Amino acid sequence: MFFHKQELHFQATPDQADAVYARKLQEVLGGQYGEITVAMQYMFQGWNMHTPGKYRDLVFGIGSEEFGHVEMLATMIAQLLEKAPVGVTEAAVQSDPTVAAVIGGTDLQHAIVAGAGARPLDSMGNPWQGAYITASGNLLADFTANANAEMQGRTQVARLYHMTDDAGVRDMLSFLLARDTMHQNQWLAAAAELREEGVEKLPVPSNFPQSKEHTPVSYQYQNFSDGQQASEGSWASGATPDGNGEFSYHDGPTTSAEMPPPTRPDARFYGTTDLPDSVEKMAGTAQDALKRE
Amino acid sequence: MFFHKQELHFQATPDQADAVYARKLQEVLGGQYGEITVAMQYMFQGWNMHTPGKYRDLVFGIGSEEFGHVEMLATMIAQLLEKAPVGVTEAAVQSDPTVAAVIGGTDLQHAIVAGAGARPLDSMGNPWQGAYITASGNLLADFTANANAEMQGRTQVARLYHMTDDAGVRDMLSFLLARDTMHQNQWLAAAAELREEGVEKLPVPSNFPQSKEHTPVSYQYQNFSDGQQASEGSWASGATPDGNGEFSYHDGPTTSAEMPPPTRPDARFYGTTDLPDSVEKMAGTAQDALKRE
Amino acid sequence: MFFHKQELHFQATPDQADAVYARKLQEVLGGQYGEITVAMQYMFQGWNMHTPGKYRDLVFGIGSEEFGHVEMLATMIAQLLEKAPVGVTEAAVQSDPTVAAVIGGTDLQHAIVAGAGARPLDSMGNPWQGAYITASGNLLADFTANANAEMQGRTQVARLYHMTDDAGVRDMLSFLLARDTMHQNQWLAAAAELREEGVEKLPVPSNFPQSKEHTPVSYQYQNFSDGQQASEGSWASGATPDGNGEFSYHDGPTTSAEMPPPTRPDARFYGTTDLPDSVEKMAGTAQDALKRE
Amino acid sequence: MFFHKQELHFQATPDQADAVYARKLQEVLGGQYGEITVAMQYMFQGWNMHTPGKYRDLVFGIGSEEFGHVEMLATMIAQLLEKAPVGVTEAAVQSDPTVAAVIGGTDLQHAIVAGAGARPLDSMGNPWQGAYITASGNLLADFTANANAEMQGRTQVARLYHMTDDAGVRDMLSFLLARDTMHQNQWLAAAAELREEGVEKLPVPSNFPQSKEHTPVSYQYQNFSDGQQASEGSWASGATPDGNGEFSYHDGPTTSAEMPPPTRPDARFYGTTDLPDSVEKMAGTAQDALKRE
Amino acid sequence: MFFHKQELHFQATPDQADAVYARKLQEVLGGQYGEITVAMQYMFQGWNMHTPGKYRDLVFGIGSEEFGHVEMLATMIAQLLEKAPVGVTEAAVQSDPTVAAVIGGTDLQHAIVAGAGARPLDSMGNPWQGAYITASGNLLADFTANANAEMQGRTQVARLYHMTDDAGVRDMLSFLLARDTMHQNQWLAAAAELREEGVEKLPVPSNFPQSKEHTPVSYQYQNFSDGQQASEGSWASGATPDGNGEFSYHDGPTTSAEMPPPTRPDARFYGTTDLPDSVEKMAGTAQDALKRE
Amino acid sequence: MFFHKQELHFQATPDQADAVYARKLQEVLGGQYGEITVAMQYMFQGWNMHTPGKYRDLVFGIGSEEFGHVEMLATMIAQLLEKAPVGVTEAAVQSDPTVAAVIGGTDLQHAIVAGAGARPLDSMGNPWQGAYITASGNLLADFTANANAEMQGRTQVARLYHMTDDAGVRDMLSFLLARDTMHQNQWLAAAAELREEGVEKLPVPSNFPQSKEHTPVSYQYQNFSDGQQASEGSWASGATPDGNGEFSYHDGPTTSAEMPPPTRPDARFYGTTDLPDSVEKMAGTAQDALKRE
Repeated sequence: MFFHKQELHFQATPDQADAVYARKLQEVLGGQYGEITVAMQYMFQGWNMHTPGKYRDLVFGIGSEEFGHVEMLATMIAQLLEKAPVGVTEAAVQSDPTVAAVIGGTDLQHAIVAGAGARPLDSMGNPWQGAYITASGNLLADFTANANAEMQGRTQVARLYHMTDDAGVRDMLSFLLARDTMHQNQWLAAAAELREEGVEKLPVPSNFPQSKEHTPVSYQYQNFSDGQQASEGSWASGATPDGNGEFSYHDGPTTSAEMPPPTRPDARFYGTTDLPDSVEKMAGTAQDALKRE
Repeated sequence: MFFHKQELHFQATPDQADAVYARKLQEVLGGQYGEITVAMQYMFQGWNMHTPGKYRDLVFGIGSEEFGHVEMLATMIAQLLEKAPVGVTEAAVQSDPTVAAVIGGTDLQHAIVAGAGARPLDSMGNPWQGAYITASGNLLADFTANANAEMQGRTQVARLYHMTDDAGVRDMLSFLLARDTMHQNQWLAAAAELREEGVEKLPVPSNFPQSKEHTPVSYQYQNFSDGQQASEGSWASGATPDGNGEFSYHDGPTTSAEMPPPTRPDARFYGTTDLPDSVEKMAGTAQDALKRE
Repeated sequence: MFFHKQELHFQATPDQADAVYARKLQEVLGGQYGEITVAMQYMFQGWNMHTPGKYRDLVFGIGSEEFGHVEMLATMIAQLLEKAPVGVTEAAVQSDPTVAAVIGGTDLQHAIVAGAGARPLDSMGNPWQGAYITASGNLLADFTANANAEMQGRTQVARLYHMTDDAGVRDMLSFLLARDTMHQNQWLAAAAELREEGVEKLPVPSNFPQSKEHTPVSYQYQNFSDGQQASEGSWASGATPDGNGEFSYHDGPTTSAEMPPPTRPDARFYGTTDLPDSVEKMAGTAQDALKRE
Repeated sequence: MFFHKQELHFQATPDQADAVYARKLQEVLGGQYGEITVAMQYMFQGWNMHTPGKYRDLVFGIGSEEFGHVEMLATMIAQLLEKAPVGVTEAAVQSDPTVAAVIGGTDLQHAIVAGAGARPLDSMGNPWQGAYITASGNLLADFTANANAEMQGRTQVARLYHMTDDAGVRDMLSFLLARDTMHQNQWLAAAAELREEGVEKLPVPSNFPQSKEHTPVSYQYQNFSDGQQASEGSWASGATPDGNGEFSYHDGPTTSAEMPPPTRPDARFYGTTDLPDSVEKMAGTAQDALKRE
Repeated sequence: MFFHKQELHFQATPDQADAVYARKLQEVLGGQYGEITVAMQYMFQGWNMHTPGKYRDLVFGIGSEEFGHVEMLATMIAQLLEKAPVGVTEAAVQSDPTVAAVIGGTDLQHAIVAGAGARPLDSMGNPWQGAYITASGNLLADFTANANAEMQGRTQVARLYHMTDDAGVRDMLSFLLARDTMHQNQWLAAAAELREEGVEKLPVPSNFPQSKEHTPVSYQYQNFSDGQQASEGSWASGATPDGNGEFSYHDGPTTSAEMPPPTRPDARFYGTTDLPDSVEKMAGTAQDALKRE
Repeated sequence: MFFHKQELHFQATPDQADAVYARKLQEVLGGQYGEITVAMQYMFQGWNMHTPGKYRDLVFGIGSEEFGHVEMLATMIAQLLEKAPVGVTEAAVQSDPTVAAVIGGTDLQHAIVAGAGARPLDSMGNPWQGAYITASGNLLADFTANANAEMQGRTQVARLYHMTDDAGVRDMLSFLLARDTMHQNQWLAAAAELREEGVEKLPVPSNFPQSKEHTPVSYQYQNFSDGQQASEGSWASGATPDGNGEFSYHDGPTTSAEMPPPTRPDARFYGTTDLPDSVEKMAGTAQDALKRE
């Protein structure tokens, strides 16, 4: 269950309204790596988790915080929109290009659909979607996904920090930046802890027996581009991070196979074959089939 | 530029057709973490990269390999569909439930749209979409995204391995599993190398000065759920992975702020306010505005 | 069957072209509550309806009108785009910010894709989608959905009215506003008629026996937020609109249940469990399963 | 802020696992009218609301409850998936059609992507999306949307009730049915209260002066289909629900306008015109334009 | 304006209900090349057209017919769903695999959302979307798109013909097949007429002066795959269909260019560069920028 | 397999950065008819093809070229973004409307998400999706789809040519225009060759026996709009392009059928019927069903 408290996790009040910036903030509210994504991602990881202990407490504990960040951003956006212009006429635009420019930079649905309110979508107007989240049941994979989400998120907030000089907005962003710092560290610590405890190992999923892999290529760098400098990296020689092998470098593939012959499905799919006589045969087949029916 | 060779990276021929399994394989072809995603993700990282050396060679070298895996899977799926039934009638379904069951488990567009061919979509029929990829320009963030993608991908392939006993299909999957093992190791090695070289540090993005963060909360675990065991993890005490702080544990938020007062945008957005007299005023404003127009 | 007449339901000619406003109008053509939505919604309600009489005539009669409104808007948009600039160069933008501003506010696909024509999408460029419509077969639910659609639609048109001072555009909008007034009234009348006739009752669906509900909570207001004023509303005490009960107010939930223990699915899904020894066991299970295969 | 309590709002434990039913339940978790929709819808209405009192408390109070229903459903789905088959081979399918049938009826991403876990999508696998929600700022419109959402939702749950005979599942559904009954009543009461208080009136938005409408058609039923029975309804004669007019019935449109002449945008959009000589002229224009460049 | 007549363009009554087939039919109702697509596509071409004569009459005339086909299919699907099972319990599934199989093959939203009604989506449950249509303003391009749409559509209907033996369904399909035959012929005739009249020519758009192209490669076949047989086709030698050139065959590209150096955008985007010292510099820049702020 | 060469197919370097134009170029990179579409479309046609010869070589040869064009465009876009502004503050916008205008015209995700990099989406920010491609297995249909794609693509590039005066950008566009000219010609030649060889004929699919069509309407123009000029076209009289018939012209439909009676599905779907007594009966049925359960 969730209980809502009518307070914010941190102050979220702009010094002044700015409808153009409101649109930009939508990215970290409802974008691929916005707050709705992390809130939903952590909660679904919790609901699907196969263990009741500290890891589940962790995803629940942070996931619920993130819903509060959704709230901070939505509240901020509504305030940034408070002076959003409705009565913008052609005449006004012609006489004051700034007005026109502002309109061009706003989310039109903020005005037309929400009446100067926040929306669950990204900065380009794409609705948030469930396909953004990751919850596989394998915690080493998922905590890596979480670390990435917080890295992408903090990078986006850092960029947004430079796109405004409103002290109130920056104050809120400085809070989000700090929490993203915490959460990056936390997911990396949690991923490390899974490995230290021996609960999970590399490669993910570690329980799948590597003997079932096609092991000759398990640690080969195969270069399908013509740049040569990839051979200089730590991914091209030396011990592998999973501790199970040695990297080797190969210029191009080490395996290949003939393409299998083209398929010939049921003639009643009406696919094209290359020879007229086989077409006749196909047509025959199809007509036979039709007759049988 | 890309050059295509009419050979496969590895054999991809099933022992027999299986239209139901063809649908399942679509997940790792066109799903969130399928081969189209990693191919596109690595190439876009390369095209957007700000350095010409080993890291760009790396993403180009692997990205191009992944397009070859898209090809292996599409070729395999077409063969699995070779005996896909077209002439399935109600009578057949009634008399042989297996036939009906098979139909129920297939991707109907394989038959109706592609005529027994592969499609760029996932196992539930959702089209692949550009929103799946990640290419931020920050390589530490992006290589973490890549490691996650390969972990999720290998987990999905491992599950698919158990959903068939076709030796030809398993052979191909054993190859993909091995390559995913390689790529997981490689991205983790590359992420480590970025940090060892001092090119990137934690937290991401490391160039943003942490002094601009709201530092009091940068390393606080704030528990918004009522489970207590999260306090036992390495994310709740001790040094942080970024080397810049110490974790601390807090039961609930350490900050809060009053919700700002509700916004009052232009009356011509026709939003509801709480008091009839202010409504009158709003209506007045709107009517005034209308009159002025 | 549908027959098309090459006349419009009302004049739809702007006084002058305005490519920025053309984009805004897309919202009520192809948005969530645009004319395509209501046209499709009413027709699908008709095609799925289980009665041949006045209610089906009603949805067919209005649904067909709405297709004509799609036409009015598309025609209007094409005219608003008639002077859309194609040859906008960097130099022009630099020298005349108004030109740049105009470009920023336009739907780029109007120019690049449609060659100065209307498109079936909303003001932010999201394509219209079938998921916007509602047609459940239960007419009391669906007429409520219709009333809402007309309310949202009229609100959007009212906002759009203030975003232009073009007399031709406003003329068309005044017509749409009037029709939305009619349709709001009509759906509310039709919903009331269903209840008066006893064809449908509250709660929807009324045929489902309320005795099968968990009746102790059927009329309880349970407050999951900490605001206290919700207790003052007519939804917190007194008779309920369905005539079947009395509202009561509760600060928080009146029921709760322990979370069930975490699930333990087949080990070959490679989900994480908390204890290394159970992991060993899982791995064993998975390896056993693999061996059996 | 949101605080999570590791208890459920009501018990949500099935008597036995049922992967096919798990997929069906996804509709009311992540579908157009699922619990994610109402949770998000009510919260966004709150964050965008222009009044601090009882109406905002109401949407916050119920919105937070709905997040708890998301949790109940996700928890239930995970348990229904606990015995989801992973090792389903062709041989097994051939020998036992029930196995095949079960696979055909499952959400494949439950197994391949989530490892026997719930997902934020509907019963056909479409991801939940932000475009499902409604939050316009006009409370009479939005509460009508809410009433509809609860009607559609209760209808779907009632249907799902008949699709299982698992007592544990039905127990949870009986709770959701009761809460939907409450919420239907509550939104209807709240909509009525807005009108009684004079805060909002019909037609929505009531502040827009009807004198600006094209009033001759504000209360006309115009029948664009050839069914005659729509004239018998309360929407075709008598007083209108908004109290401002009288319905009248008209067989077909009462207005019409000539289609405006086709548009002739810039020749460099390369649209087709009908006469070769104007094409020449267009080409000339385009070539002139090119020359000038 | 559109007028609806409560008759169908052709009989659309199945001999018996078949919920599995109902789902398949959705493809040609709401899929990429379904009837909604062609109806919308032709009407938008009309609304955007720059000439009032025979071509506009043509798209209006056929587009309106296609809306009638949407109606035929929706009506048929509703009837096919008339016996759709609602009360399917686990017990029933276990005892009768046919029942389970049928459920597996149905569109679950037909039952749960629409209450045994048609929906505007494809056979895999993806909602119809505005992005399916094509209306560029260039009629030679668009009529080619139309010809393709009718070819894809007729192919899909032909496949569906073989997936049922219900005489009523086949009767309706035989009508759609005939109309698709007509429409293929018609669009090809119309495209030819545009060229014969000299209104449009190849290559599209013909008014763009080919002298502005990089003409050395305008008629070169450049083979980027290693198959040699493409050189044997009529696209590799001889006169080109546009009458403006001669095909030539080249094994690989005839042009190439160095990749430009990597970009170095503003340091405050926090992208990764390769050398630590430039990173220092970037950080410096960012910090300078921050200080200036 | 695909091999990548770190060279471009043609130079792709702008004379200067232009973030607004970068967004416009996204249309031909990631839009419905952008380069990702044709690359994917041709490769999937190849992977699904039922013949090994010249036609498969053709789609592989060109499909691989198109991936190189994706690369050219992504590289160009990254360079156009090189000077994209990050530090745009309200003050700057107020003082220089050009700055504001530029921001309004940019793809915000270019800055916030990609850090001044290209993205796989269209000019309005919609992600590229697999639903854009066509690969039916029928080559006459698919080559017609390909011809259309190249026509739409060349039209879009021609429009984009006029939206910039940057010589570097125009140089690249002139190359793409030339290749689109080639590809239009090639697909038309290939489609003609299929017919000349007798491999495929009209109407598509030609193997489906026309005797199974409802032949009376196979060549009838039926005019559902009231424009009369469509009767003057070559699609209204004379021989049909498929050589199998004669066009005839009809003002309106030549067939019609009564609408079938409304459906009456299981009462437990809770659909509305028209008569209260049948409602009672339905409710009875539902309650009976509930009792039986």
